[in-house]
Amino acid sequence: MTLLRRICLSLLLTGAFSLTASAQSSDSLAIRRIYDEVLTNSRCYGWLDFLSNRIGGRLSGSPQAAQAVDYVKLEMNKLLLDSVWLQEVMVPHWQRGEAEAGWMVVKGKKTPLSVCALGGSIATSTAGISGEVVEVHDWDELEKLGEPGVKGKIVFMNHPMKPQFVSTFDAYGEAAKYRGGTASRAAKLGAKAVIVRSMTLALDDHPHTGGMSYVDSIAKIPACAISTVGAELLSKTIKQEPRTVAGFRQSCQTFDDTLSHNVIAEIRGSEFPDEIIVVGGHLDSWDNGDGSHDDGAGIVQSMEVLRIFKSLGLKPKRSIRFVAFMNEENGARGGKKYAEAAKSSSKRHVAAIESDAGGFTPRGFTFRGDSSKMNRVIAWQQLFYPYLLRDWRPGWGGVDINFMEDQGTLLIGFSPDSQRYFDVHHAETDTFDKINKRELELGAGAMAALTWMISEYGVGGL
Amino acid sequence: MTLLRRICLSLLLTGAFSLTASAQSSDSLAIRRIYDEVLTNSRCYGWLDFLSNRIGGRLSGSPQAAQAVDYVKLEMNKLLLDSVWLQEVMVPHWQRGEAEAGWMVVKGKKTPLSVCALGGSIATSTAGISGEVVEVHDWDELEKLGEPGVKGKIVFMNHPMKPQFVSTFDAYGEAAKYRGGTASRAAKLGAKAVIVRSMTLALDDHPHTGGMSYVDSIAKIPACAISTVGAELLSKTIKQEPRTVAGFRQSCQTFDDTLSHNVIAEIRGSEFPDEIIVVGGHLDSWDNGDGSHDDGAGIVQSMEVLRIFKSLGLKPKRSIRFVAFMNEENGARGGKKYAEAAKSSSKRHVAAIESDAGGFTPRGFTFRGDSSKMNRVIAWQQLFYPYLLRDWRPGWGGVDINFMEDQGTLLIGFSPDSQRYFDVHHAETDTFDKINKRELELGAGAMAALTWMISEYGVGGL
Repeated sequence: MTLLRRICLSLLLTGAFSLTASAQSSDSLAIRRIYDEVLTNSRCYGWLDFLSNRIGGRLSGSPQAAQAVDYVKLEMNKLLLDSVWLQEVMVPHWQRGEAEAGWMVVKGKKTPLSVCALGGSIATSTAGISGEVVEVHDWDELEKLGEPGVKGKIVFMNHPMKPQFVSTFDAYGEAAKYRGGTASRAAKLGAKAVIVRSMTLALDDHPHTGGMSYVDSIAKIPACAISTVGAELLSKTIKQEPRTVAGFRQSCQTFDDTLSHNVIAEIRGSEFPDEIIVVGGHLDSWDNGDGSHDDGAGIVQSMEVLRIFKSLGLKPKRSIRFVAFMNEENGARGGKKYAEAAKSSSKRHVAAIESDAGGFTPRGFTFRGDSSKMNRVIAWQQLFYPYLLRDWRPGWGGVDINFMEDQGTLLIGFSPDSQRYFDVHHAETDTFDKINKRELELGAGAMAALTWMISEYGVGGL
Repeated sequence: MTLLRRICLSLLLTGAFSLTASAQSSDSLAIRRIYDEVLTNSRCYGWLDFLSNRIGGRLSGSPQAAQAVDYVKLEMNKLLLDSVWLQEVMVPHWQRGEAEAGWMVVKGKKTPLSVCALGGSIATSTAGISGEVVEVHDWDELEKLGEPGVKGKIVFMNHPMKPQFVSTFDAYGEAAKYRGGTASRAAKLGAKAVIVRSMTLALDDHPHTGGMSYVDSIAKIPACAISTVGAELLSKTIKQEPRTVAGFRQSCQTFDDTLSHNVIAEIRGSEFPDEIIVVGGHLDSWDNGDGSHDDGAGIVQSMEVLRIFKSLGLKPKRSIRFVAFMNEENGARGGKKYAEAAKSSSKRHVAAIESDAGGFTPRGFTFRGDSSKMNRVIAWQQLFYPYLLRDWRPGWGGVDINFMEDQGTLLIGFSPDSQRYFDVHHAETDTFDKINKRELELGAGAMAALTWMISEYGVGGL
């Protein structure tokens, strides 16, 4: 190590910059108190137990989503915060209907395949849809087949998430468009249905749902997801028997938009009450699992942030606002609605933290917004090193909070470890038993500690 | 951010120190190749499936431990390395015997308690041991009670691991002495048995075993672990009924030392064949679970390191030696034996990496040894930031490799995330289903990448 490097490292490690030693030391103590509280007295795990095991999957427009709104409002009221209220929002209302069935037929023998309807898809007829299957791995292959290769057939989009990505979100980012966008592309070429490989790196027999959408001018065809085990089997079978017939049955339906709510709760700032820091997640979930990681975890961690402040008697200088966004999964109407209202308000949203990447062990934060604000916050990172938070960098904010980008809000995504997330994401396996209590709590602690720092020092800018 | 800080950060981030840009870039490429290989072609998960599900728990001296030696040797032979051999080592041979039973009796009503014998303990009589229970939380309380409070009773050591520690290893470090050292302290005061709260932060009904030892001059009394749920129940009951009677039955036995083996395999270095880098874990495990995290994971990750080198055709300048140490859990005889042999050899062990903290998502490495060697390796850390390895610091090496400390070997502990480890550590819940394939692979990648860097550049020193 050169001398210059040594000096730089030592200056960085001793925190000789930016914050004075005494401020840093009192901040360290505040953060330590926050973690002591969350690791010994947290309520987030119990709240999630209720949301997951008593209420369960809570897709927008469902009775469970309405129950979740009531429950979160009730629990936030118990914390005796400065205010708790509901914000009305009209949400899409899609229902899965009966359990789906999938199959393939080879030499007269019918083999079941695990499938589920993609969110937003139309149903098949009661008997299901069946036909010759053509396998493709991306849209280029689909286009090359063209109408001659696709017309009247079922398109099987077998695009695996790439294991080489270290962050599974990068692997998802590369692959997820095939879930949302294949149906209309295939329909344009005359396909009668699409079967899409599940977006997961795990090889198992659970199909993963998720949103898809139709292009208005193109005929709608049914779209389902197939488990990765099913996809492997179907692919192998097609290689051996090119004219393999497959099919599926689903009875999903889209109803009129329904009234639902964002749940909001606030601790008023002592010095700058009109500067708001949002902490939130999304309250809706897919319907097949109980939505523990996506995103019950983010909801209860955000609730816990306010509980910690209240319990420790921490008086934030800026206002801290909990927001449980409705309808992230199939419309993001809650996020849009909240951002519209925020924009027309006289108050200023200085920062927003969203937890929507699972309740796993914390890694850090990603930031989106003005670089000077970003750098100001990233400069605090060493205060957080003892708490497993070492990865601070520009990146994603969150689906719900990103709508506030044009308001100059610093958008912050809480980043837990991503390795296990897509094993359960949008699948029946996203259940409470996959939650580790301490990991959940450490995430809440991370969010509370960063919220504390922002409430004390702001993020700069206007 | 001050200008100086900005310059320092920028110099650090651009890696302008230590390694030239081109060396760093070719190292980056080598590391990327290693990760591509492990994330797409690894065999570690399959090896662990066999070790865990076909062989199972493999306590020193058991038939399973011998099977594990054979299996690992066989698999390493298949890799066509430069050499594979066994190193003889005599190991302790303790057997659990029949399943244990625990109970408490309140007002004539007998309630079962989940217990298991601590490793090394003597048995009770066939009927078990029963008596009035006295609860203590640490050795000070025990000493204060003295003979009058303890004689003829069963001591219940109810010392919970402290949740405030962020690293669960720190919490374990604070508490584990009560497992190993309470029996003789209590026996000295006349206790007839001890029941020790399990070393875990989880609240569940699985007892966690682990090593204990007797002081030679003091009478041996039976010692068992009780699940945390059992401990809470017993404690609450004693508060209500101070004269609560409890008991347990166990039939464990210590036999004569048995011949066993370390398994060793080597890829010879192309430039410095007499400089050795060890990668290893321990092949033995406790008998109640299947030892997937402790330490099947470390074994198969270390095997995978050599497989990756072989598969990619990477020619290390220094020799890379896989060591599967026998008997870490109750004697560490394999580590001692290996270190003795290493010391008397003409070859030099420059570094040793041990994976013995579970197969969870990687966090970094801890280093033990000469500080200039340590700093030289720590200076490489930014090459590893894309791979979730951001926590590099002085700390623990590993139980097995630490015996080489006096040989000037740089001791390196692979550090995965610790949050879930003690949920399963030494319990029947340490099973293969708790392993995440990608997390296991990323750990192997981390070890292989660091091994590559050390094989290229050495660690300095004599």
